[in-house]
Amino acid sequence: MASSASASKSDQHQIAKFKIALCQISVSLDKNTNIDRARKMIKDAAKMGAKLIVLPEMWNCPYANENFPIYAEDFDIRELSPSFMMLSDVARSEGVTVVGGSIPERCGERLYNTCCVFGTDGNLIAKHRKIHLFDLTGDVCFKESESFTAGNRPTIVDTDVGRIGIGICHDLRFPELAMLYRERGADLICYPGAFNMSTGKLLWELVQRARAVDNQLFVATCSPARDSSGSYMIWGHSTLVGPFGEVIATSEHQETTIIAEIDYSMCQLRRENLPLEKQKRGDIYQFVDCTNELNSQQ
Amino acid sequence: MASSASASKSDQHQIAKFKIALCQISVSLDKNTNIDRARKMIKDAAKMGAKLIVLPEMWNCPYANENFPIYAEDFDIRELSPSFMMLSDVARSEGVTVVGGSIPERCGERLYNTCCVFGTDGNLIAKHRKIHLFDLTGDVCFKESESFTAGNRPTIVDTDVGRIGIGICHDLRFPELAMLYRERGADLICYPGAFNMSTGKLLWELVQRARAVDNQLFVATCSPARDSSGSYMIWGHSTLVGPFGEVIATSEHQETTIIAEIDYSMCQLRRENLPLEKQKRGDIYQFVDCTNELNSQQ
Repeated sequence: MASSASASKSDQHQIAKFKIALCQISVSLDKNTNIDRARKMIKDAAKMGAKLIVLPEMWNCPYANENFPIYAEDFDIRELSPSFMMLSDVARSEGVTVVGGSIPERCGERLYNTCCVFGTDGNLIAKHRKIHLFDLTGDVCFKESESFTAGNRPTIVDTDVGRIGIGICHDLRFPELAMLYRERGADLICYPGAFNMSTGKLLWELVQRARAVDNQLFVATCSPARDSSGSYMIWGHSTLVGPFGEVIATSEHQETTIIAEIDYSMCQLRRENLPLEKQKRGDIYQFVDCTNELNSQQ
Repeated sequence: MASSASASKSDQHQIAKFKIALCQISVSLDKNTNIDRARKMIKDAAKMGAKLIVLPEMWNCPYANENFPIYAEDFDIRELSPSFMMLSDVARSEGVTVVGGSIPERCGERLYNTCCVFGTDGNLIAKHRKIHLFDLTGDVCFKESESFTAGNRPTIVDTDVGRIGIGICHDLRFPELAMLYRERGADLICYPGAFNMSTGKLLWELVQRARAVDNQLFVATCSPARDSSGSYMIWGHSTLVGPFGEVIATSEHQETTIIAEIDYSMCQLRRENLPLEKQKRGDIYQFVDCTNELNSQQ
């Protein structure tokens, strides 16, 4: 199995099938409650056989600009990072890979919307800071950039369950990021996200199916459950999509855990039947990956 | 109004609204019957107020490799190009812009799957040769490359109804082509297409909605009607999608003409509310348009 970022592409194809869990957590105002709830959901998912467990965007903090600095953690000060530490502990104790949704990260004066990925030994193996911040005007107005600084790097990580690309919420709207992960050998992209009611209904499923079918890979999204009392009404509907754009498993908006199977051989089948990658016209258009340190290691 | 390929981007925004017609033609074995039927459908659509009329892929020829050389036309020999001439004549007589679906084009030894676009004066204003040929193995096996040579250029054209990008069927599967047209200022992409039953059901609507929402523009697709007796069962379902990924009008699989309204101000509204183009991260990924002669003229 691939265990480091410099593993070759072929290694991951030795992993045939595994169960993924999408924990659609109900986020409360109390951070400790959120941590306890997330721990329990991860443990329960592991008991049900999940080897990869995905959490939602902002699972430790109700989604609102005024909350982010209060719930933020500085990962360099572990004793003040209970959310981070819980994820590390439970990944190790359960022997699972955890894509830890996102929480507000404090780094000096700045805040980031950050996803931490933990390996089965509990070590942090990747950290994705949301690249595309969500700034929207119109019927719904929201400016994430008032709180957060955008990350500067795509995140692809080799785990015990294959090579995974990471995006957070609005990152999903940009086909380029998914194309970049596909080029770097991902068979799965995980997007913790918290679409609102308006974009959720029209776009949430559409864009994840599009990323999956255009790149012939699996896409997993994980949203918090809807909280009708919050200022930001969340769509929910965590979903696993297969490499033909097919919805393998999805949910409504309540708290729930989806357990579903990923079979990477489906990616190969789709790519062999219809080799989109080979059919691309490099003489007409080209896609440039500007930060491809990983590729240069291979 | 924009009337040449070197018109500025802002010109097209003077066109507020217009009606588009998608003629989902039933294609028979008899070429002359197909030409007569297409002429009548275009005239009827013009009477209903359509200013832009789109025809399906291979509207003059049942979709099969053995038919393509027989139904092909060499556009340099106009007297042997009755399909081409009909489109030119009817565009001029009705004063409409015609995106003429596609027909097999003979050029020397080669065949192309070609879309001709005619202006309101009946002149040929653009010619798109399908860039991505459809070669598929698996449950459905089909190799378009056994008959056709692929085109080498994207096609974007300024018309009386704005700047339009053109793709044919499998071209729709490649997000890069739509991104290229968006960068060159298109507010509408027309894709004549003939998806089969298997890809049609799962992917046809998905991919056109994805191109529309990712690029915040209109996408129009036009398919032949289904012919249960043919070797290649066609999905049908010609569709107009708006810049938020919304299906504005669609059809079942029988012969029909869809008339719907395009309002380009919706593109501006979506782009102002959520400026995806400005939010792209050129420091992380870049898209290169390798054949941008049009851009260099601007």
